[in-house]
Amino acid sequence: MDFQTELTGRTAEIEAILKQYLPAEEGYQKTVLEAMNYSVLAGGKRLRPMLMIETYRLFGGKGKVVEPFAAAIEMIHTYSLVHDDLPAMDNDEYRRGKKTTHAVYGEAMGILAGDALLNYAYETAARAFSMDAGGADIGRAFQVLAGKAGIYGMVGGQTADVESEGEASVSMDKLSFIYRLKTGALIEAAMVTGAVLAGASREEQQLVEQTAADIGMAFQIQDDILDVTSTLEVLGKPIGSDEKNQKATYVALMGMDRAKEKAGELFAEAMARLDSLSVKNPFLTELLRALVHREK
Amino acid sequence: MDFQTELTGRTAEIEAILKQYLPAEEGYQKTVLEAMNYSVLAGGKRLRPMLMIETYRLFGGKGKVVEPFAAAIEMIHTYSLVHDDLPAMDNDEYRRGKKTTHAVYGEAMGILAGDALLNYAYETAARAFSMDAGGADIGRAFQVLAGKAGIYGMVGGQTADVESEGEASVSMDKLSFIYRLKTGALIEAAMVTGAVLAGASREEQQLVEQTAADIGMAFQIQDDILDVTSTLEVLGKPIGSDEKNQKATYVALMGMDRAKEKAGELFAEAMARLDSLSVKNPFLTELLRALVHREK
Repeated sequence: MDFQTELTGRTAEIEAILKQYLPAEEGYQKTVLEAMNYSVLAGGKRLRPMLMIETYRLFGGKGKVVEPFAAAIEMIHTYSLVHDDLPAMDNDEYRRGKKTTHAVYGEAMGILAGDALLNYAYETAARAFSMDAGGADIGRAFQVLAGKAGIYGMVGGQTADVESEGEASVSMDKLSFIYRLKTGALIEAAMVTGAVLAGASREEQQLVEQTAADIGMAFQIQDDILDVTSTLEVLGKPIGSDEKNQKATYVALMGMDRAKEKAGELFAEAMARLDSLSVKNPFLTELLRALVHREK
Repeated sequence: MDFQTELTGRTAEIEAILKQYLPAEEGYQKTVLEAMNYSVLAGGKRLRPMLMIETYRLFGGKGKVVEPFAAAIEMIHTYSLVHDDLPAMDNDEYRRGKKTTHAVYGEAMGILAGDALLNYAYETAARAFSMDAGGADIGRAFQVLAGKAGIYGMVGGQTADVESEGEASVSMDKLSFIYRLKTGALIEAAMVTGAVLAGASREEQQLVEQTAADIGMAFQIQDDILDVTSTLEVLGKPIGSDEKNQKATYVALMGMDRAKEKAGELFAEAMARLDSLSVKNPFLTELLRALVHREK
């Protein structure tokens, strides 16, 4: 089976898991439930749940205990987009061609829907405690997920990013911090949680964490590259927006050649690490390759 | 020792626990960390962590595993206030005589600080998985806390409350829903989590949940009563604000006499339930009495 066909099948599998865990739209709080479902079902590549499930499979995981965690990480990713889009943040009316949550439901409901999704992510993941985990350490998976989503992970990166927007120049050190936390942390969370739930050893968890960190950084650098080299038609959004917004990027700080080189190096390191494991998941390898070498 | 002295001592104990778990203000994400600490340390009666710890003690809990959960519930309570105060919500510049978080740090940081606190609450509670719980079911405590804080708890009540503000009349059924979820759910979370962490039986957990539900409802009805009967000097905030804002309250819907009667009935039921247990915690009993019979 070719990669695209397999990707389509596995994406559909994740859509089904998400729908299973999203709330029914009933009760006096119905509006926030509708806004949550609207936000999650507005699209997306389902990258984080897919990385989690495929890493779980890499380490021999065969159960359903990964499913509530997979739904949870997509809810966390979604809440961060809903709040990012708010008028006081990026003030975006559209995302992926659809109206953003606050544009449809109003600003108060946009805030509440984000809060509701973040909380419901942990409520959903906590269902794993009532499932058969085959001896895996669910508490540890919880620590990883919450840690990577918070102030020493995604929220920390988001804060530094928001604040750097007004700055005349952003150092390489700070830019790396933002990339590592804002984009990388949830990719790390996805893969490490998958490993933990499959019962991988601490050494394997660490190897996966470093692999995910490299992939996350390469993914973000590729974003910077595409903003310069792609076209509106291919990318589906205006190119050159980083330069227009005077946004600090890897390409701006290091130049295009070095940025491409860096992305290539990081990807090669990630592949070498995965290769050093005795276990294999060819689909995961192809997925990581597609993420870093994507054209849009 | 008299109740007030004991209350002061136990509040200080909780302040120490909170400070132990709050983040150090360093790194590129420093601003959000400052805003989190500012929000949590801006005051408050620490009611929810106190109810949790005292219920934990009621059932013989003697360890430290309750502490991360106690810190977590105060962080959840605080995030809900930070987001409630935002311009798109209640638009409050002051709370308890101090500038609100967004008034000090700006709206974007107000949103991020609330998000950070909510996530950090679960990150903090998850530390319990690395502690000795004496065999108590931490996973279950997690399920209770997340469940009561979310769409079937506090966030659900908050949603219904926000939406009811524009409505000409609010039914008794809806008002009870709002009170039970918006105020009551976190009081239930506090007491049930304390019971779970101390190893209380399912029957005892259910009894505690019902007790907390009654106390939460009586607490909120007393709020309505004081808004009519108190004075600015005693209450520390303007009275009559509910009538001025045409807010649906128990007093408005049922009349003052019935509201007082109802609060008394709920309190008596809660006390009878606690009395039916073989275990006792006299301070908890006095604390619950003080909550319902408070004058401010």
